[in-house]
Amino acid sequence: MDKSEFIECHKRIKPFIHNTPVLTSQLIDAMADASIFFKCENFQKMGAFKMRGATNAIMLLTEKQRQQGVVTHSSGNFAQALSLAAKSLGVKAFIVMPSNAPQVKKDAVRGYGGIVIECEPTLLAREAKSKSIQEKEGATFIHPSNDDNVIIGQGTACKELLEQQPDLDYVFAPVGGGGLIAGTALASQYFGNNCKVIGGEPYEVDDAYRSMLSGNIETNKTTNTIADGLKTQLGDRNFPIIQQYVDSIVRVTENEIIHAMRMIWERLKIICEPSSAVAFAAAIKHKNEITGKKIGVILSGGNVDLQNLPF
Amino acid sequence: MDKSEFIECHKRIKPFIHNTPVLTSQLIDAMADASIFFKCENFQKMGAFKMRGATNAIMLLTEKQRQQGVVTHSSGNFAQALSLAAKSLGVKAFIVMPSNAPQVKKDAVRGYGGIVIECEPTLLAREAKSKSIQEKEGATFIHPSNDDNVIIGQGTACKELLEQQPDLDYVFAPVGGGGLIAGTALASQYFGNNCKVIGGEPYEVDDAYRSMLSGNIETNKTTNTIADGLKTQLGDRNFPIIQQYVDSIVRVTENEIIHAMRMIWERLKIICEPSSAVAFAAAIKHKNEITGKKIGVILSGGNVDLQNLPF
Repeated sequence: MDKSEFIECHKRIKPFIHNTPVLTSQLIDAMADASIFFKCENFQKMGAFKMRGATNAIMLLTEKQRQQGVVTHSSGNFAQALSLAAKSLGVKAFIVMPSNAPQVKKDAVRGYGGIVIECEPTLLAREAKSKSIQEKEGATFIHPSNDDNVIIGQGTACKELLEQQPDLDYVFAPVGGGGLIAGTALASQYFGNNCKVIGGEPYEVDDAYRSMLSGNIETNKTTNTIADGLKTQLGDRNFPIIQQYVDSIVRVTENEIIHAMRMIWERLKIICEPSSAVAFAAAIKHKNEITGKKIGVILSGGNVDLQNLPF
Repeated sequence: MDKSEFIECHKRIKPFIHNTPVLTSQLIDAMADASIFFKCENFQKMGAFKMRGATNAIMLLTEKQRQQGVVTHSSGNFAQALSLAAKSLGVKAFIVMPSNAPQVKKDAVRGYGGIVIECEPTLLAREAKSKSIQEKEGATFIHPSNDDNVIIGQGTACKELLEQQPDLDYVFAPVGGGGLIAGTALASQYFGNNCKVIGGEPYEVDDAYRSMLSGNIETNKTTNTIADGLKTQLGDRNFPIIQQYVDSIVRVTENEIIHAMRMIWERLKIICEPSSAVAFAAAIKHKNEITGKKIGVILSGGNVDLQNLPF
């Protein structure tokens, strides 16, 4: 995953993604005593950065692989991203979803052209079902976060941010499965000017924080957080990158996440997911270090259930 | 209020306002069967288009008038807009507010540097208190919507929209006190290319719709609408402009407002007020006329109480 692969990836996916806007707020800057640049992946196609990695992964398939389609298991943004990316590229996408996933999420996947395959709501059942589709259809499995092509794709958000603001001192990104933070860390190495990358993670699912301490991929016993995109754990492809290039992981409470989310909604007048707000919450928590500095914050997505808000 | 006054006004206020972005959504376009361009005044300074008119009105004061300050009565966006515009220009702003106005609104006015003067919660008391401040302080009264300089200022939002999208067939704007719709109608005459202006108004406060029918300024007996920025009535400065240049006024139900607001939040991923959503709701309701056309929608503001949402 060297610099040239990043540049090639960005060229490749550009026609299929938005170069999302970077927003600022004088009031937020005054409050944080820093200049904060929000990279708005909530405005990305289908509403999240996942569109980038999904598009890159599909575009790198061989012609034969494309004809046989792709498969993943996810009930979140990656399911929708893979469906839409596949549709844009004329490829079939099989999405394995637990039978108890909300109807609205199944509908969203179908709306983007994905083929929903239901399974029992266990990890074992999901993996078994994915495996059977790989065998039966010859479809290629694409992991939501632990795949080199996905990691590079997600990193293009930070690349765009640094192209617009080359002198950022820090970039904050949320940590879930590790694809975004690993891609962000690589992008900051290649395109930043001594720019440090810090991950934000809920206390309630602090597997990445503990993984950094122990040197092994840790898991979460419970996942009781509002940041539902961050419940997953790191993988063997992204963890070594995170260990090498991520400066630190800052943990935040549920209240800090809700407070940060509210500030973004009220001040920037945009809709972001709780998972996005985690990165901003981490920046606020890191106040002493960011004072007077130029800070990037990756707002990862904007798919929120308006009927279930924390305010 | 001729074309050159508009051009001068826009030049004058430019350093003090944002040229707000124009957003689009493929999904909304597909749903509406039209190309819709949202002029995002929710991203304007202090969160609403009112900043434009307030700034213009203050800048046109004499030096002596500036020294004695400005006064208005409002508990909405204009109170905050006049406060912030006055502060930016080094002028005192007295804001007469009913004693029962929410604390958060008084705090917002004070946060922008306005001097809050409380009065009994009646129109009579508001007017008497404003009058007394005009006499005591020598402050100039600035009406939120029935003032030529305010009307021209509000119209600059549509001017910017037409500079970016010169071939709009229609522009939709909400109708409250009439300042925005009158300014929009004039701007579309001067800067549009045969562009019609249509007002959106809640059924619950359809005074403008009835005024157009009767030829007189009508009032509302009740104001039971979620679009709290649209409860006011037209004035003698803006009504003649509306009669002459506004194509029609489309009334919408409370459910249609909430549906439109939800679509903007979910699809554009931005926060807009119910009053803003009224214009989009009117466009959707006008579906037959807008099919295949290029449509502008003025999203008037984004100051929403997140603790009191209609979803």
